[in-house]
Amino acid sequence: MSNVFTVIMAGGSGTRFWPLSRSTLPKQFLPLTSKHPLIAETMKRMSGLSTPARTSVVCGAKHAALVRKALPKLPKQNVVVEPEARNTAPAIALACAHVAHQDPAGVIVVLPSDQHVADLAAFQKSVQEAVRVAQTGFIVTLGIKPTRPETGYGYIRLGEAMTGDARKVAAFAEKPNLETAQGYLVSGDYLWNAGIFVFRADVMLAAFASHMPELIKPLDLIREAWGTKKAAAVLAREFKKMPSTSIDYGVAERAANIAVVPSSCGWSDVGSFNALPEVRPTDAAGNVAEGEALVIDSSGCVVLGQKKLIAVVGMKDVVIVDAGDAFLVLPKDKCQDVRKVVEALKAQKRLSHLV
Amino acid sequence: MSNVFTVIMAGGSGTRFWPLSRSTLPKQFLPLTSKHPLIAETMKRMSGLSTPARTSVVCGAKHAALVRKALPKLPKQNVVVEPEARNTAPAIALACAHVAHQDPAGVIVVLPSDQHVADLAAFQKSVQEAVRVAQTGFIVTLGIKPTRPETGYGYIRLGEAMTGDARKVAAFAEKPNLETAQGYLVSGDYLWNAGIFVFRADVMLAAFASHMPELIKPLDLIREAWGTKKAAAVLAREFKKMPSTSIDYGVAERAANIAVVPSSCGWSDVGSFNALPEVRPTDAAGNVAEGEALVIDSSGCVVLGQKKLIAVVGMKDVVIVDAGDAFLVLPKDKCQDVRKVVEALKAQKRLSHLV
Repeated sequence: MSNVFTVIMAGGSGTRFWPLSRSTLPKQFLPLTSKHPLIAETMKRMSGLSTPARTSVVCGAKHAALVRKALPKLPKQNVVVEPEARNTAPAIALACAHVAHQDPAGVIVVLPSDQHVADLAAFQKSVQEAVRVAQTGFIVTLGIKPTRPETGYGYIRLGEAMTGDARKVAAFAEKPNLETAQGYLVSGDYLWNAGIFVFRADVMLAAFASHMPELIKPLDLIREAWGTKKAAAVLAREFKKMPSTSIDYGVAERAANIAVVPSSCGWSDVGSFNALPEVRPTDAAGNVAEGEALVIDSSGCVVLGQKKLIAVVGMKDVVIVDAGDAFLVLPKDKCQDVRKVVEALKAQKRLSHLV
Repeated sequence: MSNVFTVIMAGGSGTRFWPLSRSTLPKQFLPLTSKHPLIAETMKRMSGLSTPARTSVVCGAKHAALVRKALPKLPKQNVVVEPEARNTAPAIALACAHVAHQDPAGVIVVLPSDQHVADLAAFQKSVQEAVRVAQTGFIVTLGIKPTRPETGYGYIRLGEAMTGDARKVAAFAEKPNLETAQGYLVSGDYLWNAGIFVFRADVMLAAFASHMPELIKPLDLIREAWGTKKAAAVLAREFKKMPSTSIDYGVAERAANIAVVPSSCGWSDVGSFNALPEVRPTDAAGNVAEGEALVIDSSGCVVLGQKKLIAVVGMKDVVIVDAGDAFLVLPKDKCQDVRKVVEALKAQKRLSHLV
């Protein structure tokens, strides 16, 4: 697909995979689902649809070297360093400006850098469908058919039918409580919002002008400075004037020309260690075991070892992670409490375990 | 007490404290209850009752250096190396011969090297009482007043009263099932057999002659060779001819002149990681935490770290041990399953984690 551009959003810096993820090594650079970092799997996922030359990665300055290392085929100039983290809308605006400069009708596929897709063929089919709809002037999102009453995701309510599988978006819904999520699942009218967007560059720039007009002046100043000596200084100055807003809130929830392509592609946001048994091989008792792990009489555990022997006996649904300088043990259903460790380490100024 | 000799039995080589204990570093050399190895605490427990010069330690050849290191005040010649491990009776016979050589009426206190005593004054008072009774010709054992229906210990049934606190032993009882143990606890007639024996050297030698006569000829040959060039060779040859039997089974359960001094001295055999919260300081939630441990929202855990950070969140009654080259995680009530790890490592020839 000759005019499909890929923009991989790699600005994230969460703590949910501590002690593996650190401020200097966020989740997208970890090999959580295979031997390759999530971001490399993400780029590979677009093989045949886009090319490295038409792929760019948006990240923070301190992660640019990691991006280049993880994606050796990516042209170096395609690593777009955000002067500061300002959520997804400014980064996408910048990407639109770059693509529009080459091909105003170029179609951009925006992908979070830290997700997993089990069924590549289904994913690519959905993206192709989304590209087709995007070419007609829609901002298209991939909606994942829910497989459980998940309370950790936003949802998309299906609207009227379009050609093919696509549907208009009736509404975006915030993360629901369990009862609501169960209702969503049963109704069949709701899809998970995966944060994957497909649109023509000119269509999105027009949407920014309509729904986030305050973003246009800084963007224009940045574009005018391109190729001049002032380019970097103008970018640094103007980027931080753009509103720190998500593309969902700033554009998708406000625009009328929003469509969704439902997809069952084995998608996971790999939100915590808890998700690994969904996306990795497990033994007969449902354990994920990596490195020098010796797992006996245990089930449903996630044991991520390194060179050091980790012997686990008689445990159920527990996460055990060796990160070299730090070790983590917690129940699989309390993975969100990793942040308590990070907070305690910050409070105790034990920063070496955080960077 | 000028004629009290101490014999510390340090021949044990269990696996229940793997990965801390190894074949080259058995439990008695680990600092499990304080900063000092259990064997050092054991020797210290006899301060004022015996002296280093009147203390000897029986151990295997490969642990002699560890004994000397752990007990710097012990005269080097008082480390008695067993030519091979043959249970407690031969080792005690050898100790009796040595003491009888110096003082036939000398009283020997035999102590396992790997136990804990919380109340030193109560322990010493009980030992003094046992020494007094031993001087009258009895083989005396310390009987620990049970505090729970423990199924892991042998029991002593109290017999007729003697002078002071001492009682005749009515019978020794094997490790009971839970129902029987509960009956023992309620009855008040049963004490735990702690493996602590107090007796005159000549009395025990006479008991060996009566109840284990096959032990006498090798012992006499060993004694005759003392001070000659053949001493070591005769010891090596004759020691292995002695029956590999415990002093409990070989003598105590057969002799008539057996007494017991009941004691409530906060005794523990420190049988597994599970026992550590009984014998070490705990936090408000009952956790034992050592080394770089960060224990959050957890209770009843035993976290033995070293220099590496161990973050534990939301866990209950779990043992987590870092031994440098190996890490162990298992439920506190399944501590006996450590042997499954040891067996698996042996089967997989991963011997570096065992030595």
